[in-house]
Amino acid sequence: MPGRTFLQQAVPVTFGLKAAHWLGGVVESHAALADHARPRLTLAGAAGTLASLGGEGMALARAMAATAPFDGLQTDGSHAMRGRVGRFAAELAVTATMLGKIARDVSLMMQTEIGEAFEPSAPGKGGSSTMPHKRNPVLCTAILACAMRAPNLAATLIGSGLHEHERAVGGWHAEWEPLFELLRLTGAALNHAVTLVEGLEIDAARMRANLDLTQGLVMAERAAFALAATLGKAQAHHRIEAATKAAIAQRRPLRDVLADDPAIANRLDMAALDAIFDPAGYLGGAGALIDAALARGRAQFSAC
Amino acid sequence: MPGRTFLQQAVPVTFGLKAAHWLGGVVESHAALADHARPRLTLAGAAGTLASLGGEGMALARAMAATAPFDGLQTDGSHAMRGRVGRFAAELAVTATMLGKIARDVSLMMQTEIGEAFEPSAPGKGGSSTMPHKRNPVLCTAILACAMRAPNLAATLIGSGLHEHERAVGGWHAEWEPLFELLRLTGAALNHAVTLVEGLEIDAARMRANLDLTQGLVMAERAAFALAATLGKAQAHHRIEAATKAAIAQRRPLRDVLADDPAIANRLDMAALDAIFDPAGYLGGAGALIDAALARGRAQFSAC
Amino acid sequence: MPGRTFLQQAVPVTFGLKAAHWLGGVVESHAALADHARPRLTLAGAAGTLASLGGEGMALARAMAATAPFDGLQTDGSHAMRGRVGRFAAELAVTATMLGKIARDVSLMMQTEIGEAFEPSAPGKGGSSTMPHKRNPVLCTAILACAMRAPNLAATLIGSGLHEHERAVGGWHAEWEPLFELLRLTGAALNHAVTLVEGLEIDAARMRANLDLTQGLVMAERAAFALAATLGKAQAHHRIEAATKAAIAQRRPLRDVLADDPAIANRLDMAALDAIFDPAGYLGGAGALIDAALARGRAQFSAC
Amino acid sequence: MPGRTFLQQAVPVTFGLKAAHWLGGVVESHAALADHARPRLTLAGAAGTLASLGGEGMALARAMAATAPFDGLQTDGSHAMRGRVGRFAAELAVTATMLGKIARDVSLMMQTEIGEAFEPSAPGKGGSSTMPHKRNPVLCTAILACAMRAPNLAATLIGSGLHEHERAVGGWHAEWEPLFELLRLTGAALNHAVTLVEGLEIDAARMRANLDLTQGLVMAERAAFALAATLGKAQAHHRIEAATKAAIAQRRPLRDVLADDPAIANRLDMAALDAIFDPAGYLGGAGALIDAALARGRAQFSAC
Repeated sequence: MPGRTFLQQAVPVTFGLKAAHWLGGVVESHAALADHARPRLTLAGAAGTLASLGGEGMALARAMAATAPFDGLQTDGSHAMRGRVGRFAAELAVTATMLGKIARDVSLMMQTEIGEAFEPSAPGKGGSSTMPHKRNPVLCTAILACAMRAPNLAATLIGSGLHEHERAVGGWHAEWEPLFELLRLTGAALNHAVTLVEGLEIDAARMRANLDLTQGLVMAERAAFALAATLGKAQAHHRIEAATKAAIAQRRPLRDVLADDPAIANRLDMAALDAIFDPAGYLGGAGALIDAALARGRAQFSAC
Repeated sequence: MPGRTFLQQAVPVTFGLKAAHWLGGVVESHAALADHARPRLTLAGAAGTLASLGGEGMALARAMAATAPFDGLQTDGSHAMRGRVGRFAAELAVTATMLGKIARDVSLMMQTEIGEAFEPSAPGKGGSSTMPHKRNPVLCTAILACAMRAPNLAATLIGSGLHEHERAVGGWHAEWEPLFELLRLTGAALNHAVTLVEGLEIDAARMRANLDLTQGLVMAERAAFALAATLGKAQAHHRIEAATKAAIAQRRPLRDVLADDPAIANRLDMAALDAIFDPAGYLGGAGALIDAALARGRAQFSAC
Repeated sequence: MPGRTFLQQAVPVTFGLKAAHWLGGVVESHAALADHARPRLTLAGAAGTLASLGGEGMALARAMAATAPFDGLQTDGSHAMRGRVGRFAAELAVTATMLGKIARDVSLMMQTEIGEAFEPSAPGKGGSSTMPHKRNPVLCTAILACAMRAPNLAATLIGSGLHEHERAVGGWHAEWEPLFELLRLTGAALNHAVTLVEGLEIDAARMRANLDLTQGLVMAERAAFALAATLGKAQAHHRIEAATKAAIAQRRPLRDVLADDPAIANRLDMAALDAIFDPAGYLGGAGALIDAALARGRAQFSAC
Repeated sequence: MPGRTFLQQAVPVTFGLKAAHWLGGVVESHAALADHARPRLTLAGAAGTLASLGGEGMALARAMAATAPFDGLQTDGSHAMRGRVGRFAAELAVTATMLGKIARDVSLMMQTEIGEAFEPSAPGKGGSSTMPHKRNPVLCTAILACAMRAPNLAATLIGSGLHEHERAVGGWHAEWEPLFELLRLTGAALNHAVTLVEGLEIDAARMRANLDLTQGLVMAERAAFALAATLGKAQAHHRIEAATKAAIAQRRPLRDVLADDPAIANRLDMAALDAIFDPAGYLGGAGALIDAALARGRAQFSAC
């Protein structure tokens, strides 16, 4: 019996659904970045008028816009209005955050006391000079270090759009290094995340064992819903809450406490109780959601 | 003769082109926000499985997704992956920045020594309790104060996506107030910006007078390009640079200095010189760019 | 045997030392904030000259500075130079972060699978409407939500110091709400942190059990140092590393693997081995460091 | 007569007082950074216990603390509590902002239409490849580009203090590059600011001319205070406000409008009116404040 509180575990979730969420985040970022990465034509001159091209400025801009990679006339003031730079930076930061979220989850699952997932080990990686037993989560660490820096770099790039006139004193120049940094950090996070995900080791038995640590408390919601059909919602919630307290106080499985309560045993027989306390039976649409995420991922990545 | 340096003025730009840039920035933000504002269906349950809906979770989600405002099944993990919140926040901040850029430009044009544009005055607005002559740029001030706060709020919302598992300890809760703040600040900036732009007073004569402050130096690029046709680019640049220094040292119009130089006068007659120094003749594609921006604006806003 | 990697656990640390670190962070912030909170006299007038006070401005300023709460003449340009506001904001954010760090550690220790510490429960706090067993870490959540927002608010307040002349168009006004927010968030975090720390429940037996999960691997550094005395550092590290791998592969205590190795058993008898694997004997200066932190805390807080 | 609004000019301020404010900001930052730069001893070991030093850890720490550059025992948990890093980063950002504020003011004074101050020119610096007349404010630009990036880097460093246990997964590593960046950016801003300030060119005649652009409106506060002595505050404010409007409408000096008003002329003779409209007579404590700032600067810098 693990302790007095059960905060982390609400209802069961499969690792597959967790990974499907990760995939969903990456797919959205991929789609958004692909849109930002389309070639754009910015032809402007010192103050945006194209005057230095003589009378030919607009004709030249139109001709260039009509050529292969450009999708239309884009001499549209991005010289002065830096929204695109800000949006691109924000999407890079969101992407880094999506990757960092994967690393956050893996690093939590890697904790000694949890041990459900592990980043791949590699000879010479993550060791300690004085602690022979140590294997540091170097991939998660690197991804998170990148991801933690990205949002504020994006903020600098959005904020530099508050510049003066057609060319800022400082505002434009403050964009240069942060944009390179963001590209570097997001690219590095992606590179490490691919290694992390491709080599991720999963301990399914440990996942199941950790689920059982609560002695069935994690299934309390399901039991309450099942009882609500005959007892009414309020009464069912009240009874399960009382049984939950008893289970914790007596360090017994919630199922056994419920089985001892005649009012409940009359309504749910042993087979029904056993079924309620099987986490694998309370996964709702997890499978369908995973399928949908995989389909979305295939559609997105097959296009590139 | 204004001074020894001529940094702000590169080549002439019309106020119309500046305003067209403002419009372009607003149009892009409008399009992006309209996309973020589409209704989305997120049906998840405590851990994203829909298990609490019994076997009906996915069917219910699909049925809801098929109804009017939703455009498809959206039970896609936004519970866990907060990229959409980050992107929406970033677009709000970019929008606030686009509006703040308008206020920045107007506040610079309102400077006593420049006096080219003025925010509308209203009785009881912008006065000073001890300085009867004072009219503060209250609209620009309010817009900029909103816009300066927005990027870092967006960074907080992007960064909170680095949360734990299916529901963070703090990460989700850190989103609530900043998102409201961003909506409030961007909405307030927009409200003030509409008042600012609708009532903006322009002093065209002052704009022209300020352009003339450089005694023709602002047309030096054009003169160099005109001379390059007969002198070659390097030689033309060199001669105009020398004439520029002489004009500054002698506090004379650049046109007159050039007219005194036989090598130049041989190549450009007086009428040609006069034409070169007419800023209205060196506006490149400004008119066409304004037309394009207006067309884009009409297309965007007629759709809503 | 918990898993294949042992990242979180380096060498033993006591909960007391962890709490002493928390105290140290709070003490430093208390000292820094007390310095910022000293009354300061800023008497300036519209442009900082005190001209509106006639010839008496400086005399008045000096007289006020000499009165009770002020510690000297402070009419020193904080009207124009906003460094103090930025520093105060940064210290509030650092303070919120120090408190958030406590909440971070507690929330990690509260995980179902770890169960070493628990925030105090209160009737009606942290429950779930559908999950009768759930006890959410509401204090940690609230503290972390405050702490995650504070650094970017401080950045806004530092950055607004880049304003124009004697009074900014927007820069000063952008300070108002963020400063109130920071005070509110840091105060709320402090309020919750006091409740958290005063009611914190500790499960010492579970801490010890979690330490034993590694079957002695957490003491590998100590074993390596002990062997280094007779085997040399490199050879000792090498042997302990090999024994560590064997212990993991065989799922046996590291102590037993070492006892089976004659080269080691010759150098360390059973009593010495047992002593090495007692974590309580490898706490270094933990006790002295706790005493020092407590003394520093008493000195700081007795002064207020 | 410059225009219809007089926002920038409140009451006269001398350039000397503006520069004294700059000095004050730099002096405060110098003092704060000097404090952060004192050597500190952090001796911790892998988890902060000093256990790897055997029984000698605390003795060693105390012995080291007693040696020359350290000012006492500092084995105080900065391994776990990162407040010092956050504070140091914040002070670097505040310093960059103080320097950026100087560049902001200079860049505004350098505007073609204002022309009151100029950054030093250097051959080959700030020119344009196509515009021979252009002299870009390259020092102000470089300083501002550094200063605009600093606050958000500081926020990242403050926020990374929210890390886990004795050593974060990512939080500590996210500190490395941003801290170097902050040192580099603040150092670069300082280097450029020294060049800027040492070579700053001032056009005092232009400053006076710009002050006269308002035709005396900038002295309206003083006139109102002078009249208040005999007319009462409300009545004086009201009359000066009316005269201000008349002066603007008639494009006449405020002094002349007042002289034409018998009610005012009865109370203030011509000599008194002339004195009121001499900006040099309405500088309050500017001189004393400059002296105080210089004294503070000398005290701070003579100590280093």
